[in-house]
Amino acid sequence: MRVIESFGTQSIDERAAMIDGTRPTPNVGEHDVRVKITAVSVNPVDTKLRQALTSQTVGTILGYDAVGQIAEIGSAVDHFEIGDRVFYAGSTARDGANAEEQAVDARLIAHAPERLTDAEAAALPLTSLTASEVLFTKMGFKMAADANTGQQLLIINGAGGVGSVAIQLAKWAGLTVSATASRPETRDWVKKMGATHIFNHREALAPQVADAGINFFDGILILHSTDQYFETAAKLIKPFGHVASIVENREPLPMGLLKNKAASFDWEYMFAKSDYGVDLSSQGQLLAKIAELADQQILHTTLTTTIDSGINADNLRAAHQLVEANKMVGKVVVTGPFNGSEKA
Amino acid sequence: MRVIESFGTQSIDERAAMIDGTRPTPNVGEHDVRVKITAVSVNPVDTKLRQALTSQTVGTILGYDAVGQIAEIGSAVDHFEIGDRVFYAGSTARDGANAEEQAVDARLIAHAPERLTDAEAAALPLTSLTASEVLFTKMGFKMAADANTGQQLLIINGAGGVGSVAIQLAKWAGLTVSATASRPETRDWVKKMGATHIFNHREALAPQVADAGINFFDGILILHSTDQYFETAAKLIKPFGHVASIVENREPLPMGLLKNKAASFDWEYMFAKSDYGVDLSSQGQLLAKIAELADQQILHTTLTTTIDSGINADNLRAAHQLVEANKMVGKVVVTGPFNGSEKA
Repeated sequence: MRVIESFGTQSIDERAAMIDGTRPTPNVGEHDVRVKITAVSVNPVDTKLRQALTSQTVGTILGYDAVGQIAEIGSAVDHFEIGDRVFYAGSTARDGANAEEQAVDARLIAHAPERLTDAEAAALPLTSLTASEVLFTKMGFKMAADANTGQQLLIINGAGGVGSVAIQLAKWAGLTVSATASRPETRDWVKKMGATHIFNHREALAPQVADAGINFFDGILILHSTDQYFETAAKLIKPFGHVASIVENREPLPMGLLKNKAASFDWEYMFAKSDYGVDLSSQGQLLAKIAELADQQILHTTLTTTIDSGINADNLRAAHQLVEANKMVGKVVVTGPFNGSEKA
Repeated sequence: MRVIESFGTQSIDERAAMIDGTRPTPNVGEHDVRVKITAVSVNPVDTKLRQALTSQTVGTILGYDAVGQIAEIGSAVDHFEIGDRVFYAGSTARDGANAEEQAVDARLIAHAPERLTDAEAAALPLTSLTASEVLFTKMGFKMAADANTGQQLLIINGAGGVGSVAIQLAKWAGLTVSATASRPETRDWVKKMGATHIFNHREALAPQVADAGINFFDGILILHSTDQYFETAAKLIKPFGHVASIVENREPLPMGLLKNKAASFDWEYMFAKSDYGVDLSSQGQLLAKIAELADQQILHTTLTTTIDSGINADNLRAAHQLVEANKMVGKVVVTGPFNGSEKA
């Protein structure tokens, strides 16, 4: 089958970053399905993993957000049939979705939302798993409509992929959502996603929060520069509240600032479960819930940029470049027929 | 009324550390009750606060674990009557329980367990609030009998006041409890409290854990030297698990070690709620549950040392000395009639 391979290189502009290639059709384990890919999204995890590649000779198949049709089913898999249209993030421990076909553990997948196009659906899995795990598993908010009314959530950098889903899910769950954004287009976007208060993270946050009449947040979700925002979060978090982050710190964090509030610090990393083989089916279940919310038009796709002339090395390079520029509002998806060439 | 006052001094052996004195009977606010004290316990928070005192002229009334009878009731208080026997930790923001009488917010108190003596009951509030908040609010275990079966908890330093209650509550809730202890008497004690596995924290923990057939813990509760045990905890925690601590770190913690497991770090400090005036009634409710478990003989008192010749400066000094020696197994309580002298 045809695939798109990435090799060790620092720059996305070099040819080795994205090359059309070929591989044998993947083997299907007893818990797997084989999926014929129709749309893939690019996330910061793709660009980070690509930048960390070192081999110039062994290619890596990236891609951790996919929509496609099931072409083969493992012996231990139920709930799915050949031809089913599914969506998932999968696992970074195996070949990714930048390929004609992919083998993925069926416990990590769900039927794609029926109301959404392939591109719209492909924008959702990784970010919605991240957002729902951090809000409802890690930070302890209840995952049900209006179940957290009266509670305040602050999202630092609300306009990215995870922030855009987190705002919507938190609002659905009854939280009052404050989101930070600095540019006119990102401010408009987080408002459209459902943020009640919008603060500018290029200026001091505490005075803006006080002006909005908010004393403390029950939860603060850091989606950019954990080092930069940790102290502000420690100041604004409610006693017994949760500060969560998806962005690894560079400097040691002054954790003692949370001590007298008995606050928690929660990391979220959605590949932790597949990396360690723990609780895989929880991700399929979360995605089924996400699909349900999307079909009920409660959760809207965060797709803003579609590259629809086919899945190939050139189009994936373009998508990586957009993500690396670090100014994305919402998500970018590459879709259309897989049309990478046969040979590198 | 007679009180026991503490002044700024480094050493518990100096007279200023504990002096019999007098104060006006405390005013009772609308949410308060006035309690005639019959037993008090000493916790590490007493000795830490005493060591931090700086004034040589203004005395501080310590004491954050008490049993007594209600002598007066504020206008907004229901659920309690004059003469009721209650127990509580109270608040460090107000005068403590080392006094004939104390005013305390009635939302922080509960009826004392009927089966327990005053001394047995006075050993429980602060440690059982700490243990139940950290296990069931912060770490997310379910607070019900056998509700967490199959999950593994490690308690670093299981033999102290908090550890002794935490082992019992966790076992009641269905967790398999491992506790660390190093001396023969502490090993016997944590076994008596209900620990299934006992590890020696003076030796490397990871090999002992592996020998016990345990891969990861769902929760790790650090009750001693957070700096020393954090890296081991990061190694032994399950993906999406909770590392919790009640002991402030001295050096920055390498939080990044928890990132790829999407683990949480939870601080617990039971005075956070009263310090910030947040969710006070949750503590009265938790204490009512603690009393119920004690009366059902599910939770046993952790009292090991009773000084029963009356509440006075000399006996409180002795109790502080025992706690400061840092070798306590279980808890020390001072009880008997309040018999401090009238004048300092």
